[in-house]
Amino acid sequence: MTKKYHLTGIGNAIVDVIAPGTDAFLEAHGITKGGMTLIDEERTRTLYNAMGKATEVSGGSAANTMAGFASFGGKGAYLGKVADDQLGGIFAHDMNAGGIHFSTPPLKGGPETARCLILVTPDAQRSMSTYLGACVEFGEDDVDDALIADSEMIYLEGYLFDKDAAKDAYLKATHIAQKNETKVALTLSDSFCVERHRVPFQRLVKDKVDILFANEAEILALYQHQRVEEAVGAIRGHCDIVVVTRGEKGSLILTPDKMITVPAHPVAHLVDTTGAGDQYAAGFLYGLSRNLSMEDCGRLGSLAAAEVISHIGPRPETSLADLAQQELGISRA
Amino acid sequence: MTKKYHLTGIGNAIVDVIAPGTDAFLEAHGITKGGMTLIDEERTRTLYNAMGKATEVSGGSAANTMAGFASFGGKGAYLGKVADDQLGGIFAHDMNAGGIHFSTPPLKGGPETARCLILVTPDAQRSMSTYLGACVEFGEDDVDDALIADSEMIYLEGYLFDKDAAKDAYLKATHIAQKNETKVALTLSDSFCVERHRVPFQRLVKDKVDILFANEAEILALYQHQRVEEAVGAIRGHCDIVVVTRGEKGSLILTPDKMITVPAHPVAHLVDTTGAGDQYAAGFLYGLSRNLSMEDCGRLGSLAAAEVISHIGPRPETSLADLAQQELGISRA
Repeated sequence: MTKKYHLTGIGNAIVDVIAPGTDAFLEAHGITKGGMTLIDEERTRTLYNAMGKATEVSGGSAANTMAGFASFGGKGAYLGKVADDQLGGIFAHDMNAGGIHFSTPPLKGGPETARCLILVTPDAQRSMSTYLGACVEFGEDDVDDALIADSEMIYLEGYLFDKDAAKDAYLKATHIAQKNETKVALTLSDSFCVERHRVPFQRLVKDKVDILFANEAEILALYQHQRVEEAVGAIRGHCDIVVVTRGEKGSLILTPDKMITVPAHPVAHLVDTTGAGDQYAAGFLYGLSRNLSMEDCGRLGSLAAAEVISHIGPRPETSLADLAQQELGISRA
Repeated sequence: MTKKYHLTGIGNAIVDVIAPGTDAFLEAHGITKGGMTLIDEERTRTLYNAMGKATEVSGGSAANTMAGFASFGGKGAYLGKVADDQLGGIFAHDMNAGGIHFSTPPLKGGPETARCLILVTPDAQRSMSTYLGACVEFGEDDVDDALIADSEMIYLEGYLFDKDAAKDAYLKATHIAQKNETKVALTLSDSFCVERHRVPFQRLVKDKVDILFANEAEILALYQHQRVEEAVGAIRGHCDIVVVTRGEKGSLILTPDKMITVPAHPVAHLVDTTGAGDQYAAGFLYGLSRNLSMEDCGRLGSLAAAEVISHIGPRPETSLADLAQQELGISRA
């Protein structure tokens, strides 16, 4: 590779607070099952007080993807805003411990590091309530031009669109990328997030995105289609690669001339679906960084997703490089 | 019960930072395998930087015991010092979420909330390096006279002896207990801790402790014996009940007129031994609070220990009340 990094992720830097929950609890507290809802500081306090004993781990969609990407052996960097507090220290530690370059300066004197309250129901579904905290201060100044120029790809999460400063940063990043032959990958993140920002997302996908990740609900929401086939038809010419993840049904990979179906990787014991989409993207992008076939990119995505849903928490607990060797016969670069 | 609480725990209020580790890592960083070592702020930083991606969960020996005690259905309270920071908030949340009364005022403007860096090796052993932080400020003023008077038992961890202010608090607590017919239970915590404070521990055990918990290494260290039988003989007259935990060999319970052998509860998959002793004490003390037989107290201890070593983290993840019903046929009070 001629550039220093294979992939730079840009996203909301968040610490996850994970506790078991019941459907009754979700209902009593008006939490959308399986979704991600933005909450303010007061509701964060109320919900947290009502939740049971929790486990704290570093999260954030694009940050989770970078952790998976590094676990496969990819060289990665990350841009995102934490506060200068204990949770911010935990987030930074976990990025650095994973070998990911992370040097966005922490926010001083503003809101605390973002946290996501995640309730995992017995059916392994996760329902997320996110307090964005310091993330809201991530802006254009935090977009490191040299870093993006020195990356083969950047990966952005749709969640960034929930705050104006982050949206500007996002546009700046895609602009720098285009000037430096850095490919742009985007995940739509969440169907409600797509609903909130449909038109700008449509424009982005058409003009600036090379690789798009979405699940079925998100791709339908983007053009308000009823059927996945229609949505896929509408978007196909706009990006080089469109990947639609479909849970236990696996994924679809669409290029201008091919449609590839990839099965899900088998999971012995489904525990917590948090991070499944993030890890799929990690595997897929790692495959791309190695110039592997679309099929192998998809299989790496399925493998990483299977690992993360077999335990609590959004990041891999096993070396994905070892798993790729053992399960798929794909050895390290 | 005529008192408000069955059990009040007093100990170091700590958040655990748990990461996988290897024997080579322990050796490279001079960490005593299986032990608990006190470390200063600088070494905490160095070690943390060297550790991999971690999970944060509330810990602290006596606090873990209280979490288990409450999970069985016992009414509990806790005294311990956190700082007024994010980790302190996490610790307090997890106590309250477990239904444990916890109202020690957090420390303002001093050291941060204590943390324990725990490396779990592939053999499931945990090796702990503890930064005591705000715990050092736990003192006599934090000992709530009314709370202790209103508890049937108090439970103290030997680790408290590592700081003078906490030792004074400890002695005050035992004094109040004796005046109010509150039984005093003590865990020796760690053989190195016993080495550090042998004479005061001997005096305490002789004069003030009704129920003593120790593992084999700790009971040997207390009177510098070579064989467990000798140590047990020496201590037997000093406390009403002496419990010696012996890992996979189960436990011994000694009263002035009986010696009872309790087997370990079977564990399908040993993952992380953190909290085994704490949870044994939780089950045993819960049995005592119900006036169950010594045999049943021991079986409840073994059950709780088996639960906690089957997953990462020092506190139960399953309702111990349900487990006691299902596995031992001991129903709720």
